[in-house]
Amino acid sequence: MTKGELIYNGKSKSIYKIEGEQHHVIQTFKDDVTAFNGEKHEEIPNKGYFCNQISASIFRYLEAKGIKTHFVLPYSGYEMIVKKLEMIPIEVVVRNVAAGSLTRRLGLERGKKIVFVATGSDPNTHIQEVPIVEYYYKNDELGDPLINDNHILTFGLADQSTLYSINHLARHINTFLKEYFKNINLILVDFKLEFGKDKKSDIILADDINPEGCRLWDMDTNVSYDKDLFRTGDGDFGLALEEVYKKINFSSIP
Amino acid sequence: MTKGELIYNGKSKSIYKIEGEQHHVIQTFKDDVTAFNGEKHEEIPNKGYFCNQISASIFRYLEAKGIKTHFVLPYSGYEMIVKKLEMIPIEVVVRNVAAGSLTRRLGLERGKKIVFVATGSDPNTHIQEVPIVEYYYKNDELGDPLINDNHILTFGLADQSTLYSINHLARHINTFLKEYFKNINLILVDFKLEFGKDKKSDIILADDINPEGCRLWDMDTNVSYDKDLFRTGDGDFGLALEEVYKKINFSSIP
Repeated sequence: MTKGELIYNGKSKSIYKIEGEQHHVIQTFKDDVTAFNGEKHEEIPNKGYFCNQISASIFRYLEAKGIKTHFVLPYSGYEMIVKKLEMIPIEVVVRNVAAGSLTRRLGLERGKKIVFVATGSDPNTHIQEVPIVEYYYKNDELGDPLINDNHILTFGLADQSTLYSINHLARHINTFLKEYFKNINLILVDFKLEFGKDKKSDIILADDINPEGCRLWDMDTNVSYDKDLFRTGDGDFGLALEEVYKKINFSSIP
Repeated sequence: MTKGELIYNGKSKSIYKIEGEQHHVIQTFKDDVTAFNGEKHEEIPNKGYFCNQISASIFRYLEAKGIKTHFVLPYSGYEMIVKKLEMIPIEVVVRNVAAGSLTRRLGLERGKKIVFVATGSDPNTHIQEVPIVEYYYKNDELGDPLINDNHILTFGLADQSTLYSINHLARHINTFLKEYFKNINLILVDFKLEFGKDKKSDIILADDINPEGCRLWDMDTNVSYDKDLFRTGDGDFGLALEEVYKKINFSSIP
C-alpha cells in the first residue's frame, strides 16, 4: 500500500490518498498544536504519535460498542487508514460539565455539572445527567460559529434525518466515552465530534477523538489532561498526552 | 387609574405599577434609542410615541388573528396598559431574509432570502419559505448570546412544552406579520419577540413589536424603515418611524 498525494492539509492533521485505492485514505497526525483560531502555534514532540494512538484505541472501543467509525487500520505511528467519507461541515460538541466557551457564553462557573432537570410527577426520578449538544459551523474564516438546527437545515449543512442521527449518535458516544474515561479515573468534561457519510449514506464517526478535542479532568484533583494546558500555558500538554496514552494502555479497558 | 412606582427601567421602555392593581402594569416607551449593547445612544423626539402607537396597532391586529398578547388598552400617547406576566428570559428572533448578525455569523450576503429546501420526491413542491427561528439568552452583561434548545432546557430558561409553544407561536406571528407589512409595501426581514406567562401559565406575546425590533424594507427599493438607520447613521430613524406609523394608519389593514 503506497501513500499518495496530499489532499487535505489541516492545522493538526493531513489526509493523503492511497495509490490505486478509491475508498480509503491515510490520516496523518501532526506535532503542531494551535489555539485561538491559529493565533497560538507550537510543535510538541510526539504529539501526533500520541493523538494517533489514543484515537485508534478509542475508535476500536467505540466500534466494539456498535458505533461505526472511519478507522480501519493503523498505518504508522503517526498515521491511520480511514474510510474516505463525504464530510458533514458541522462540529458537534457534547458537554457534561461547564468549561471553555460555554462558561463565557452563559456566564457559568467552570466545573458546574450539567444536569438537565425535566419536570414530572416525581421530580427525583427526572433528574438526569443529560449532556448539552451544540453544533458549530466548521468554517475557519467565520471562527466556527455556534449554530442551531434551523441554520443547519435552512442552509443545507445536513438534512433532518442526518441531524437526528448525528444527535442520537453523539449522545450514545458520550455514554460510552464517559465509561471509558471513568475506567482510567478521568472525567469526560466535553468533546468534539465530526461525522461523514459513506457511499451508502451511512453516517460514520470521523476525524479523531483524543485530548486535543476533549476536556479530561482527573477525577480526584480536577487537574486537566487536555489541550487547555496548552491554551492556558499552565502545564505540559505533551506530558499529559503521554500520561493519557499510558493510562489507556495499562488499563483493563476491553 | 393612577400610575404607581417604577418597577423596571430598560433602555427603551419602563414599566410602572398601577395603584391598587395586581394583574396589570403600564408600559412606557422612551425617546431614547441605543445600539451596540448601549455604546451608541441618542434621543429621537416622538420615537416613544410612534413605537407605542405602532406596537398597539400590531398587538390589536395579532389579537384579531387569535394570538394572545399582553396589550390591554392605550394609557397615553407614550404608554399602554399591559398584562403583568412572568417573563421568559429568551429573545426569539425570526428571520425571513438574511441581515444583521446572521450575515456576520454565517458569512451570508445581506438580502439573501431564507428558503428552506426540504428533500422529497418532487423538489418543486418542497421549496418553502420557512423562516429561521433563533433564541438569544436575554442578558445584557453577556451581550444576549445565541443559545440552542439544549441550553434553554438544561439551564431551565423554559421547559420543553413552553419552548415548543414559543416556536410555534413565533412562526404563526411571522406569517401574520409578513401579511400585515405586505399591505403597506414593506418586507418583514426579521424581528424579535419576547413572551411571558400569565397566572394560568398561558404563553402570552409581550414586550413590543415596532421598527426598533424589526427590520422592514421597502418592497420596491429595499430601503430600510427600521433601527438600522440609527445603527448605520445612514438615514433618519425618527422620520422612518413616522412614515411606518402613517402607512399603518392610512392603510386598509383590518
